[in-house]
Amino acid sequence: MAPKNAFYAQSGGVTAVINASACGVLQTARQHSGKIGKVYAGRNGIIGALTEDLIDTSVESEAAIAALKYTPGAAFGSCRYKLTSIQEQRAQYERLLEVFAAHDIGFFFYNGGGDSQDTTHKVSQMSHELTYPIVCVGIPKTVDNDLPVTDCSPGFGSVAKYLATSIREAAFDLASMYRTSTKVFVLEVMGRHAGWATAACALAAEEEGDAPHALLLPEVTFNEGRFLTRVQETVERYGHCVIAVSEGVKKPDGEFLSTSGTEDAFGHAQLGGVAPRITELISSKLGYKCHWAVADYLQRSARHIASQTDVHQAYAVGRAAVEFAAAGRSAVMPAIRRLSDAPYRWDIIEARLSEVANREKLLPPDFISSDGFGISDVARRYLAPLIVGEAYPPFKRGLPDYVKLQNIATPKKLRLKFAI
Amino acid sequence: MAPKNAFYAQSGGVTAVINASACGVLQTARQHSGKIGKVYAGRNGIIGALTEDLIDTSVESEAAIAALKYTPGAAFGSCRYKLTSIQEQRAQYERLLEVFAAHDIGFFFYNGGGDSQDTTHKVSQMSHELTYPIVCVGIPKTVDNDLPVTDCSPGFGSVAKYLATSIREAAFDLASMYRTSTKVFVLEVMGRHAGWATAACALAAEEEGDAPHALLLPEVTFNEGRFLTRVQETVERYGHCVIAVSEGVKKPDGEFLSTSGTEDAFGHAQLGGVAPRITELISSKLGYKCHWAVADYLQRSARHIASQTDVHQAYAVGRAAVEFAAAGRSAVMPAIRRLSDAPYRWDIIEARLSEVANREKLLPPDFISSDGFGISDVARRYLAPLIVGEAYPPFKRGLPDYVKLQNIATPKKLRLKFAI
Repeated sequence: MAPKNAFYAQSGGVTAVINASACGVLQTARQHSGKIGKVYAGRNGIIGALTEDLIDTSVESEAAIAALKYTPGAAFGSCRYKLTSIQEQRAQYERLLEVFAAHDIGFFFYNGGGDSQDTTHKVSQMSHELTYPIVCVGIPKTVDNDLPVTDCSPGFGSVAKYLATSIREAAFDLASMYRTSTKVFVLEVMGRHAGWATAACALAAEEEGDAPHALLLPEVTFNEGRFLTRVQETVERYGHCVIAVSEGVKKPDGEFLSTSGTEDAFGHAQLGGVAPRITELISSKLGYKCHWAVADYLQRSARHIASQTDVHQAYAVGRAAVEFAAAGRSAVMPAIRRLSDAPYRWDIIEARLSEVANREKLLPPDFISSDGFGISDVARRYLAPLIVGEAYPPFKRGLPDYVKLQNIATPKKLRLKFAI
Repeated sequence: MAPKNAFYAQSGGVTAVINASACGVLQTARQHSGKIGKVYAGRNGIIGALTEDLIDTSVESEAAIAALKYTPGAAFGSCRYKLTSIQEQRAQYERLLEVFAAHDIGFFFYNGGGDSQDTTHKVSQMSHELTYPIVCVGIPKTVDNDLPVTDCSPGFGSVAKYLATSIREAAFDLASMYRTSTKVFVLEVMGRHAGWATAACALAAEEEGDAPHALLLPEVTFNEGRFLTRVQETVERYGHCVIAVSEGVKKPDGEFLSTSGTEDAFGHAQLGGVAPRITELISSKLGYKCHWAVADYLQRSARHIASQTDVHQAYAVGRAAVEFAAAGRSAVMPAIRRLSDAPYRWDIIEARLSEVANREKLLPPDFISSDGFGISDVARRYLAPLIVGEAYPPFKRGLPDYVKLQNIATPKKLRLKFAI
């Protein structure tokens, strides 16, 4: 039997290492050429499948594929596009399978977070219903680290390393200046619901008095009075205070702190930024000079300071996905299983997509210190190994030398276009 | 004649490499022990001299001093504290010389920007007037790159490398997402008056269509209509638009764009952040989804991505300062002279403090592209070599292993305290 082709796509917010997973998929598929034919990548995620915009990865050189391992972003384009239930969007699922059939695709790899695992699961269900056989394997990815079953999610370790490094560096700056200038520095961190990335900032602190001195986690309701007391006590004790705040911090009424009804002079709702709000609160109530930073995309694309552990794991789940598929396993996702904290050991196990889809893993209560402004020893043991190791990209003329693929579309075979 | 002691202090906003200059000073002074005795560092810059809070650097190990070469911030503390004219603050200058006399200090090294070079110059003048002989040598430092005479300022090359790397990485992220999500990314860059750092972002672009697609420089008056046209044309052509904006961008009335009368719901003036303002303008006028980042202290403390060229130069000016002093040269500052662009060659020359003090070097008009949104080829040739080379710090447990000195004060000898 001639080998079936494969479809691979990247979905949702990108990471510094999602292309390392792509690299794992493509290199491993080339090793299984008896079972897997061409790998077509969806341009802009699942949209590439719906619109029959399939990138022929077989024309990319070995060197270009290898360079994906150190290139941030999504090399084939990602998308924020959610397929909902089969009942509501049956036509979309039918279209997917129609495109797959037209290009003799028998393997479906979808690289993303919780929503993407749900999509992969649904494609698998539809394949049974419509009796079009396709092996469906999810590949985990999210900087938010909120996927269940897997011990951690590829993408998170590098964000964690970037944030802990950056907050340590900014703290060295602040410690130099606070005597006559800025006394408080606030760093805003991604993570609307789960506080994993904010918690990782705490890795920068190794000795009494080290920054960060307070975390504002989305899992802990913001209490203005307690927070201001904490800041004041820290400044009185150490002369300065470094704070990491999650963009998802909420007030007691459940509203996000970052969108609490502020308007500018033109009556527009003030755009995001919980860091400037926290800063304004501190300076108006305590009178300290403050600085703030919002890393935004910088944190999830900072491949130059990626975690080697994270790169290894991102590659490994890509490779494992292809191996699962080649072995005929479907409706599964490679998950990382932790075997020990120190030395850090892990392997890859098979998770059922039905157990992964649409479940969000928040920071467990025992990961949060009793005062709510820090992390526990349990959390530290969990987080510490994930940022270990450097994996610098090559540099050229002083800048990271990232690859851009050719991304050549394969000729369309279907006459009908599909509107998305 | 017994060797005289030296005073060294760090001043103003810190950089990723000001400690590399300190390393150059301390290591070179130890090599000139026949002429230079102990080096006392001022705790928190010149304040350490005024308050007789002198750190005895001789108790620090060779290893700790060597580690300064890769540690950001100011190891002895910096300050924002300006000595003004001798007429107004004669008592302060007299106090400085009194402290220096008490500790047998015959060399004064001051590591900072334009204001600091002015202070060094004044101390030199006072030493003549009060007939207390002291050799005064300035050491250049500023992320703003606005010191005159010297071809570039230590600290700038590393900010430039951090920014160009970060904007390239964020652009890979945006390029992955724009099809269904964010179309515009805005990065806010330090530099209230001079646009050097913002200009350096343009190094990230090497091919047609590469980010950044527009710079907003403080040297170019902001024109809302022209800017929005530029953004719209860029999005229509490339699907997305990456913008670097200087915190110092001004409106036609000369007011900073970042403080244009906005108030929050409580009637407080909205705190800084020109990036959110630019973003709000774009989303309200053009309807594009935008993201923004403000790197703030992260950019000037990012030692993990420092420029090797910058580290070399920071060390070299520290070393040269001591060599000038040992040769009896006073009221001077080591300056970097460019000998050629490619290959990049430079040496150190002697600049007169009188020519350096209180002069600000803005981006020359011929460094700015004709449309005002980019840089010229002349600028690119100037900027390109400054970011070349990586100079990674050592890492431990996944994080940069920066040094904290003991910073032990030498016993005070003066009875009177000095209020600052």
